[in-house]
Amino acid sequence: MSIQSEEAFLSLIDEHFATDSAALELGRGDDCAVLSQGGPFCVSSDLFLEDIHFRRSYFSPQDIGYKALAVNVSDIAAMGGRPLAFTMDLMIPSGLDRSFWEKFFSGMAALARQNDMPLAGGDLSRSDKLGVSISIWGTPGPSGRFIPRTGGNPGDVLFVCGEPGLARAGLSLLEKDGIKAAETFPQAVQAHLRPKPKTMVANLLSAAGTSSLMDVSDGLARDLPRLLGSKPGADLTVSPDMIHDEVIRFAEQTDVTAEDVFMVGGEDYALLGTAAPEAFKSKILTIPGVRALGRINDSGTITVNGTPFTLNGFDHFDA
Amino acid sequence: MSIQSEEAFLSLIDEHFATDSAALELGRGDDCAVLSQGGPFCVSSDLFLEDIHFRRSYFSPQDIGYKALAVNVSDIAAMGGRPLAFTMDLMIPSGLDRSFWEKFFSGMAALARQNDMPLAGGDLSRSDKLGVSISIWGTPGPSGRFIPRTGGNPGDVLFVCGEPGLARAGLSLLEKDGIKAAETFPQAVQAHLRPKPKTMVANLLSAAGTSSLMDVSDGLARDLPRLLGSKPGADLTVSPDMIHDEVIRFAEQTDVTAEDVFMVGGEDYALLGTAAPEAFKSKILTIPGVRALGRINDSGTITVNGTPFTLNGFDHFDA
Repeated sequence: MSIQSEEAFLSLIDEHFATDSAALELGRGDDCAVLSQGGPFCVSSDLFLEDIHFRRSYFSPQDIGYKALAVNVSDIAAMGGRPLAFTMDLMIPSGLDRSFWEKFFSGMAALARQNDMPLAGGDLSRSDKLGVSISIWGTPGPSGRFIPRTGGNPGDVLFVCGEPGLARAGLSLLEKDGIKAAETFPQAVQAHLRPKPKTMVANLLSAAGTSSLMDVSDGLARDLPRLLGSKPGADLTVSPDMIHDEVIRFAEQTDVTAEDVFMVGGEDYALLGTAAPEAFKSKILTIPGVRALGRINDSGTITVNGTPFTLNGFDHFDA
Repeated sequence: MSIQSEEAFLSLIDEHFATDSAALELGRGDDCAVLSQGGPFCVSSDLFLEDIHFRRSYFSPQDIGYKALAVNVSDIAAMGGRPLAFTMDLMIPSGLDRSFWEKFFSGMAALARQNDMPLAGGDLSRSDKLGVSISIWGTPGPSGRFIPRTGGNPGDVLFVCGEPGLARAGLSLLEKDGIKAAETFPQAVQAHLRPKPKTMVANLLSAAGTSSLMDVSDGLARDLPRLLGSKPGADLTVSPDMIHDEVIRFAEQTDVTAEDVFMVGGEDYALLGTAAPEAFKSKILTIPGVRALGRINDSGTITVNGTPFTLNGFDHFDA
């Protein structure tokens, strides 16, 4: 049974997303939601579109709902923030039945509950293809501050937390073999379908004095220059022991090196950050999953294992 | 020349939308923007999709950019709020040249400047069709409060500010005759292409003690029950002198009455509100454009000119 009316959609949404929350002075159903908030907040917005960002052939409805929200939560995490609430604009093609939407909302609602984050509002429209646009906002984490991308200084240690290249390997394998790729590359496939926002780790990094932080969504090669700012310079050391086993196995099947997959990546949702050497050694390195990538400098050049690096990362914008 | 790269899009956006604003502690380019705000805020989100909400055949690029933002500003206005900032997710089909985007952004940026409202961030993706998803945040207006939809009480006067039915007439005429409809129905066409958010009037209404307020986006017939809440009741008087001349002329060409066009409407972006009779008479009625529609009651029935009203309004959700 497909869902014919806007009202039916709205009540299904009400079933999955609580309408009462301390963060919401006025919930869904009015022209706007009203949020109680006594200080600065951060906002972000992302698209999640069928056949651009996901395929229905290998994403389950739960995966689609989950990931549409997860990529936004990751943006809040990368600010060292705590998610406060989100809005969802939903583009609804015909032919998706109620069971699809049940699963879609349950995948999304589980992540929302996990982050104690109400759905504050949104919009529904029919559309040719399924699409989601989510806006999310957050408050500063326990450290009381937001961490910008561009706080690093020459001499700072560059570090990563997460598995660069793993989701890209998953995407390539899913595109080639469909969901049965999960049999041989379970973690790569999972990294693409169900990226885990690193909210907790990011809060620890913030408290430990990270000087800059961002989430790697377009791959290290594209996102690292964004972190480094106007005169990007860094010397990176990428060794096989830093690269996920499945990335290494994936690279063996292709004509690219594991280091290139690691650097080019895409949709990694790893955290990339910098810290002063003392803070890195004494505090940051003790945080689970953190690995040093190298040092930043003001040379204007990024090198990987001593060689200037030039590849372009994964770009949703490319045709 | 079409715009090939994400970077080219982002610099074009920078040309049109200022990056510095008192409302923004941290502007675009990071994972999130940071908004400075000392109290509660309201938020809303809307889709504006090609061939659902607009057609490129009769919307100029400026009109599309303008209206995508205007419908969101209208939501803030309907809360009695003041726009603070917005994010834009842009779905970009191939084949639109730089000149299109220049016009699109300039139409949007003019309205943003008029409301002193920065673009805080967003996302870009290629897409089959043009689409915009905008989220908007606002602060309370001069009265210091937000006005909910559901603050009306039996006995309150129901009023409207704007021209119900005019935009719907414009839409019908544009669909039939294209942009040349503007020659004979200039204001109806303008009402559909370029709805004016009533921010200023809404702030006056708020200060004058309006008990409830909403923007009529789906037509009076659909939106009035939403204003009235769980047991909707109201007696309305709709006379020809309350209906725009072009709505009356439009109705004469069709098999529906002008009263029906007025009631069914759609995308009116008129303000619909309630006020206690004394406040209405002494203050609300002096605000330009305000007209009494009737009284609300607890009868459970809506009547128009003495007859129970049952028509359904305009619904974007309808196939």
